[in-house]
Amino acid sequence: MSLVSSRAVYRHQQTRRLLAPTSIAIVGASANPASFGARTVGNLHSYAGPIHLVNARYQEIDGRPCFASLSALPEVPDCVFVAVPRDAVKPVIEECVRLGVGGVVIFASGLGESSNPEHQAIQRDIVAMTRDTGTRLLGPNCLGMMNAVNGALGTFTHIPVRLRLEGCRSIGLISQSGALGVGMAQAVERGVSFSHVLTSGNGCDVDAADQIAYLANDPDCDAIACVFEGVTDPGRLIEAGEIARQAGKAVVVYKIGTSESGAEAALSHTGALAGSAAGYNALFERAGFVVVDQYEHLLETAAFFAKAPPARAEGVAVLTPSGGAGIMAADQAEVFNVSLPQPGPELRAVLESHIPEFGSSRNPCDVTAQILNNPASFPACAEAFLREENIGAIVTPFPTAIQASAQRNIDLGNQVRAHGKMACVFELTGWQEGPGVRDMEMSPHLAVFRSTASCFRTLAAWHRWSRELARTEASTPPALAPAQVEVVRAALAAAGTERTLPEGPSRGVLEACGVPVVNNRLVNSADAAAEAASALGYPVALKVETPDLPHKTDAGVLRLNLKDATAVREAYAAIMANALKATTADRINGVLVQPMIPPGVEIMVGARVDPLFGPMVVVGMGGILVELLKDTVASLAPVDTQAAHALLRRLRGYRLLQGFRGSEPADVNALAEAISRISLLIHSERERIAEIDVNPIICSATRVVAVDGLVVKA
Amino acid sequence: MSLVSSRAVYRHQQTRRLLAPTSIAIVGASANPASFGARTVGNLHSYAGPIHLVNARYQEIDGRPCFASLSALPEVPDCVFVAVPRDAVKPVIEECVRLGVGGVVIFASGLGESSNPEHQAIQRDIVAMTRDTGTRLLGPNCLGMMNAVNGALGTFTHIPVRLRLEGCRSIGLISQSGALGVGMAQAVERGVSFSHVLTSGNGCDVDAADQIAYLANDPDCDAIACVFEGVTDPGRLIEAGEIARQAGKAVVVYKIGTSESGAEAALSHTGALAGSAAGYNALFERAGFVVVDQYEHLLETAAFFAKAPPARAEGVAVLTPSGGAGIMAADQAEVFNVSLPQPGPELRAVLESHIPEFGSSRNPCDVTAQILNNPASFPACAEAFLREENIGAIVTPFPTAIQASAQRNIDLGNQVRAHGKMACVFELTGWQEGPGVRDMEMSPHLAVFRSTASCFRTLAAWHRWSRELARTEASTPPALAPAQVEVVRAALAAAGTERTLPEGPSRGVLEACGVPVVNNRLVNSADAAAEAASALGYPVALKVETPDLPHKTDAGVLRLNLKDATAVREAYAAIMANALKATTADRINGVLVQPMIPPGVEIMVGARVDPLFGPMVVVGMGGILVELLKDTVASLAPVDTQAAHALLRRLRGYRLLQGFRGSEPADVNALAEAISRISLLIHSERERIAEIDVNPIICSATRVVAVDGLVVKA
Repeated sequence: MSLVSSRAVYRHQQTRRLLAPTSIAIVGASANPASFGARTVGNLHSYAGPIHLVNARYQEIDGRPCFASLSALPEVPDCVFVAVPRDAVKPVIEECVRLGVGGVVIFASGLGESSNPEHQAIQRDIVAMTRDTGTRLLGPNCLGMMNAVNGALGTFTHIPVRLRLEGCRSIGLISQSGALGVGMAQAVERGVSFSHVLTSGNGCDVDAADQIAYLANDPDCDAIACVFEGVTDPGRLIEAGEIARQAGKAVVVYKIGTSESGAEAALSHTGALAGSAAGYNALFERAGFVVVDQYEHLLETAAFFAKAPPARAEGVAVLTPSGGAGIMAADQAEVFNVSLPQPGPELRAVLESHIPEFGSSRNPCDVTAQILNNPASFPACAEAFLREENIGAIVTPFPTAIQASAQRNIDLGNQVRAHGKMACVFELTGWQEGPGVRDMEMSPHLAVFRSTASCFRTLAAWHRWSRELARTEASTPPALAPAQVEVVRAALAAAGTERTLPEGPSRGVLEACGVPVVNNRLVNSADAAAEAASALGYPVALKVETPDLPHKTDAGVLRLNLKDATAVREAYAAIMANALKATTADRINGVLVQPMIPPGVEIMVGARVDPLFGPMVVVGMGGILVELLKDTVASLAPVDTQAAHALLRRLRGYRLLQGFRGSEPADVNALAEAISRISLLIHSERERIAEIDVNPIICSATRVVAVDGLVVKA
Repeated sequence: MSLVSSRAVYRHQQTRRLLAPTSIAIVGASANPASFGARTVGNLHSYAGPIHLVNARYQEIDGRPCFASLSALPEVPDCVFVAVPRDAVKPVIEECVRLGVGGVVIFASGLGESSNPEHQAIQRDIVAMTRDTGTRLLGPNCLGMMNAVNGALGTFTHIPVRLRLEGCRSIGLISQSGALGVGMAQAVERGVSFSHVLTSGNGCDVDAADQIAYLANDPDCDAIACVFEGVTDPGRLIEAGEIARQAGKAVVVYKIGTSESGAEAALSHTGALAGSAAGYNALFERAGFVVVDQYEHLLETAAFFAKAPPARAEGVAVLTPSGGAGIMAADQAEVFNVSLPQPGPELRAVLESHIPEFGSSRNPCDVTAQILNNPASFPACAEAFLREENIGAIVTPFPTAIQASAQRNIDLGNQVRAHGKMACVFELTGWQEGPGVRDMEMSPHLAVFRSTASCFRTLAAWHRWSRELARTEASTPPALAPAQVEVVRAALAAAGTERTLPEGPSRGVLEACGVPVVNNRLVNSADAAAEAASALGYPVALKVETPDLPHKTDAGVLRLNLKDATAVREAYAAIMANALKATTADRINGVLVQPMIPPGVEIMVGARVDPLFGPMVVVGMGGILVELLKDTVASLAPVDTQAAHALLRRLRGYRLLQGFRGSEPADVNALAEAISRISLLIHSERERIAEIDVNPIICSATRVVAVDGLVVKA
């Protein structure tokens, strides 16, 4: 469903001139070394292409010619850095567009992010000028972009910038915030290599989606790390993810600003349950990104993916000279569900031949501190594990920062390479940037983690990512049949001006789409109620159908578990009497009779059209689990049944569906089908339907059926 | 309940000679520089007291006299390092005990941890030799102990050891594993100062409890960090915690080996729910320790506590030059429930006078990058926050490792000092040990965190710790009344040889201790059942009482919700018929009649005598919450009602008790009282009772009552 559009390909060609320019101009070049212009020129010192200085106040700067305007240059530059004050920006952009430069980078602050309407207007004007031209716009209010591949370190920062380390796998780093990007890129000092650092500031044209797509196609970038604040066009981000997937390149993301979300969301409302954090997670999942939940794990996770081939097996062997470190690895492997397969008898015999009797030939495998005296035992044990088909990676601790241990690990990295597998080190030393660490970081087949948890969290993500990468073809998105759509639209039209469809028509819509709903009949007399009950089968429930009483239990207009005709007649009378206390007869459609459904696992399925993310589906455990524990998961719609299964598996209450406490497993296939159908409905009718709330769906081994359902029109 | 025993005081005096010796001897001194003996002598280079070399093979080593035996020394040393091979250890210890040395440190491996019974026997003999003598034993299989205060770095490690940084607050580090301890202590290279690093290896005498007590009384240790593998005497650890509390010193712990626990525990059993991880957490909580759940957070948390005074207020102000960093701080403050109070109008006016209009005068307070041009604005805003009574700490990010930013933060540390408050920095740079970081680490009033999450997790722990510290007097442990104990013991005696008390007597025991239990009557005929039901009030439940049918629902010997005498008589007959299919009449005590309890929140309370931790109480949400989500908490018994309240608040399902979904709040006071009573019972009768299982206790606004209870004898 995420084939790459021609629009994306075109944007990418344009972006390339901006981010990988063959010529550069700096408007606002200056002889004042503290100026943005001068600092930018200084940072471009390794750029091999032509750099043109532009400033009408100089004829030359430091012996280099300076031009009065862009028009005066001998060529049209690919990329123009606009290092002039806010109020001087507009005419420069005008000139850029007129000349057809590839892209402009605007440093100035106080535009769109200002509270001053005049300054905001400048940004709007600039965006309008460049829209649908060949000239792309980076910024304003940005720190620029640093392309370490061609030396175009186009930024005014005064922090020393040095990014790429020769012979190392490199990360392309994207950060809307320039301060965070530059600070994170200081990791180069401890051996992490970067191909690019791309900021976007106010991001009013080129954004993270463009930058991901660009980096995905750059052969010098081995993995992409991205600090997200927000996106405005989720569709382009999904396309960028698909481009990266096709390039076999991982995109690792950290989202800042998660706190407003879940906590403040009102629980009773589907929309609220799919609040912005849930929306972003659903988007990232759809885009195939690897999400980290701590900022400080972003780089080490990206560095791992820059080095790791796709996983050949999901088993991990822990090889340790320290028993304590082995225990810690086992602790975290369990937390993140990473399998540490136990050696079979043959492998065990090999290990035992290398390990002293007070060591351990299990997994974690404790080779003991004896490796100081017998260094060959470590690679011998590693080799034995690497020959196992079910082992995809070797993990080893770095308890003390000393060069000799680092070298042993680097040798391990070179050893795993021959097997197409991966080696990881988790640091336990208090001197995490101490001797040997830089050399390990720079090693192309060994990933370094500063936390045991981060190591195993990343291994688990690697296994998921590798499975996703192996998916050869994007699946064709499912769709509702035209006949189904016709029924749905008729029901929506019949509802007239009411935003919320009555229960009967709501169920009709769901049923038309293939969602199993409980049988029911709408009646208008006590006799008709008894007759319907007899036809549907006792026991039954009765409730009034009216738009005016959403809380039926409180209003006394819902009666459950009625076992015979007498009870039904009494209930009918009582319900109507109560209903008429709260509304008028003309607002009452009748009384719904429906059979009681035997107990099962209750699931809620909601769907809504999010203003940012578009149609989404939310699935949660019913009852107290959803309300007390917020046990819900969200996805962009539509989802096929396989994706619906995956959603269900992420619920904490999933075990209830699997046959908890000795009960028979629920029919999860039928439930996944119903979820997929609801997601197809919201996706197909996203212009006409605002929300769908199906709660509960009661699931047992023999039956999955929606008991209540409401459809709200857009 | 945790006054310090005279035994603990005596142990401490002994331990002091070992860990802070005024004279040292090394048995196994050697001219071979690679030997343990020579390396230990080398590491003692700054020790000012006398160091005596002992080895019968030398008369002098490197120009220093060498003695043939300990007996030949001019004095009895406080501390003897035994650097001889395993098989030569015993006679040395014999001599040490005979001479009355303060303590011995045994480096040799392959003793108690060996699988060879002969080698294990050596350790047993050594322990027997030293028991109840004035000579304490550290090790064997240990890396020694490093006292940086008096220069007694008594260890054979070849890793360069340098611990204490002048003028810095210092951590006393305890690690059973020498490798982990020495590796962690490398943090001195990035500015973390240590007063001591104490290992214990096999820990067959001096252990973490002794070491905590010793460090608590050492004025050069400002906080204690401890890597736990396991303890053998929980009582001494609690005493050590009390000594540290009285000294106003925090003990920060990380427990390795948590993975066997919860996951493998059988869910249906109270004991299993209180598995070893739960036991350790209960122990640490009782001891007043600060627990971290990631190894790499241990040191930074301890470093914080070494610097921080007790919290004067629980509000935190975030002051940031970067908006993105402020958002990240707000994210984590919310995760860890740390309050960021919003400024009132007066404070706001002050802030606005220093902050540009595109900044923010809220909390997080974004002073913007303008502080580069206007450096006075940062301390001015800090001062305004520090004057607020509800602010106890200032938190600020370190986005880029540059010396000037570090100096600004160090100045902030000096500024907060005057207010008796605290300053914290969270690093966002990828170069976490880069320029300025060491200076910040060494600053006595500024704590440095390498993760935003770790910063706010620690602040939350600081608030809890400060509250605990303010507790002036240990509360007197509650106890059962003698009359209650008498009833309990009579019931236990009456049970004869059955391990599990029948339901009637089990309830009798609980009732005698003040636990409210549901009324019931044991009957032996259908007529008597109907009579009992009428007396107790309909509806009722009937179930057979026999030791042979623990699973009553499956066996058809439990009937619920019986509404009249006819139903009761029928149920009685059916139950007896089913019971007699499974057992014989002589094993049936009768049929219990009890009233149905209206629905409420179901709570389970278990208690057991753990072989390691002694009497414990476990509280959990009933129903699916306990089984699906393992929503239980454990405590060492007894707990008073206040502690029982605290336990309940830690349950994820606590909100159910508070009146969830509009229902009335349950009577939590009565529930806490019942929990306390059950904990008193297990504690009082820990020699006689193995387990108590009260499940469920049904809690509503008007009634808290145990519906089922079983007592198992020891």
